[in-house]
Amino acid sequence: MDEIICIVDSDGFRVTAMDRSHISFVTLDLKPTVFDEFECSEPERITLDTDEFMKVLKRMKNTDILTLTLDEGNLIVGLKGDAERKFKIRLIDIDYEPPQPPVLEYNSSIEVPSNLVRDCITDMDLFADRLNFLFDENYFIVTSDGEFGSADIKYLHGENITEVVKSCFSIDKLKEIFKASKFSKYVTISLGNDKPVTINFNLASNDGCLGFLLAPRIEQDE
Amino acid sequence: MDEIICIVDSDGFRVTAMDRSHISFVTLDLKPTVFDEFECSEPERITLDTDEFMKVLKRMKNTDILTLTLDEGNLIVGLKGDAERKFKIRLIDIDYEPPQPPVLEYNSSIEVPSNLVRDCITDMDLFADRLNFLFDENYFIVTSDGEFGSADIKYLHGENITEVVKSCFSIDKLKEIFKASKFSKYVTISLGNDKPVTINFNLASNDGCLGFLLAPRIEQDE
Amino acid sequence: MDEIICIVDSDGFRVTAMDRSHISFVTLDLKPTVFDEFECSEPERITLDTDEFMKVLKRMKNTDILTLTLDEGNLIVGLKGDAERKFKIRLIDIDYEPPQPPVLEYNSSIEVPSNLVRDCITDMDLFADRLNFLFDENYFIVTSDGEFGSADIKYLHGENITEVVKSCFSIDKLKEIFKASKFSKYVTISLGNDKPVTINFNLASNDGCLGFLLAPRIEQDE
Repeated sequence: MDEIICIVDSDGFRVTAMDRSHISFVTLDLKPTVFDEFECSEPERITLDTDEFMKVLKRMKNTDILTLTLDEGNLIVGLKGDAERKFKIRLIDIDYEPPQPPVLEYNSSIEVPSNLVRDCITDMDLFADRLNFLFDENYFIVTSDGEFGSADIKYLHGENITEVVKSCFSIDKLKEIFKASKFSKYVTISLGNDKPVTINFNLASNDGCLGFLLAPRIEQDE
Repeated sequence: MDEIICIVDSDGFRVTAMDRSHISFVTLDLKPTVFDEFECSEPERITLDTDEFMKVLKRMKNTDILTLTLDEGNLIVGLKGDAERKFKIRLIDIDYEPPQPPVLEYNSSIEVPSNLVRDCITDMDLFADRLNFLFDENYFIVTSDGEFGSADIKYLHGENITEVVKSCFSIDKLKEIFKASKFSKYVTISLGNDKPVTINFNLASNDGCLGFLLAPRIEQDE
Repeated sequence: MDEIICIVDSDGFRVTAMDRSHISFVTLDLKPTVFDEFECSEPERITLDTDEFMKVLKRMKNTDILTLTLDEGNLIVGLKGDAERKFKIRLIDIDYEPPQPPVLEYNSSIEVPSNLVRDCITDMDLFADRLNFLFDENYFIVTSDGEFGSADIKYLHGENITEVVKSCFSIDKLKEIFKASKFSKYVTISLGNDKPVTINFNLASNDGCLGFLLAPRIEQDE
């Protein structure tokens, strides 16, 4: 994810990034109500270097007040705590239309504690480099197989699932995604058969969502 | 320690492992009373790859309920928390009689806070690659000598020791062993003259023991 | 800083070290009142290998009682906690007069929370390898410029500063110095124009001071 696209309009602040290898999309949606103050006279779209933007965001503290301002080719990130800190990040000009995440329909979605899924991905990582997500009527089941061992995890989901769906994913990609498990206590997983999975972390206040779309590994793969 | 041998019989669960270089033995003894449930219709002995087994054990949480079951060439490790997790570890067939730790008699044993010994090994590590354990009537003394400095630690042991005993050991091996200092607040050290040391970490409940046997370094070694 | 010089006399215990590249000096001044007991029949000056001395000091615990004794070519560092630990560090003979830090006069000094300065140096480190310290009437301002972005931090100092002063420093050197921010909640920064900065961390009890002198980077430097 070399660049991120930020769109600000009357619906709020939306960030999208795509993995160059086209295997995954990330979107961050923040509604105007997330912000103490939100001003947008006309819609804007800017492109930033992902690394530069992340470096600055990581310097933020819980108690800092964050301001984002556009100023002639730069994004100004202001952090106000005991001192006033301003970071200026150069915008990137891109001359191509950034790819948009496909819109997918799912019949099967469940909500699970995000830590539980994160831990179970780490479990699977012991043996294998890919795992299966499976929903049946009662359980969310994760399985993996390796040369030296295998693992198998069942979680009673308590949702209304009517058909069995199953897809296989890269454990490394899922590990990356579930670093976001801090963002929200619960995660919504939407699954199909050999279809990309949609993984959404919703803010408790319901006015923000961090979402991921990850392509499946097809079982016949290497 | 490439393989571990697990023996289950009416006396409980016993794990032994030997360092290939034959320099140290580890044993873990868990009496049936340690377990909430313990069932053993006939004694079993199995062999596992140490790394594979440790990887799975490290995924255990404090609150998980652990079950160990044998099933046609596999050890099934079950962990039950919010989700049910099952790990299947392939057993290893070995066709040789695994070496047994020698049974040693000691005249001198003391019980010491395990953190204290762990810290003192780290102290010694500053200067040298080996250290001396010495018991005299009043003190447990640890010494080491290096080019740039030396260290010297005395601990009033309060035990009935009648002869002075002393042996020299590899600091690296001791550091490995004392990673187990979390296992128990106190450690029992049994020492002789230029003789292997026996280091036992006993569970507070007294129905479990993690023990190590480490060969001495002979002072003349280069 | 390969060697440190320790001077003990009726004024207390003073350690000085100089970076071989002559770019920075460190001094640690501890008044006799810092010590529970302080005995010095005649002034002494000794030289130690910095690494060896630091290795031993790092093994100290909060609750340890520290004793420093000289004994025929060695410094004996005693640490008394649950066990008695003694470390012997070989003194170094040097036959040259160690360089002394220059005595500098400043018109502008401010006291700032040391964590705030430490964090702000880390902020700057995102973009650049040098930064500017600037005092004006109201603010302590730190700035840096890099290819991808820039940062700019303002802190209302509340001191009586009458002239604007500004110097540029290496971020790496400052990061090293501010590892000492644990030593004291506040730090005193004395600044001039293109002149070395003096950075003093004072013990709350006022009977100890850890001080640094750091040469400026001249803006024209490559």
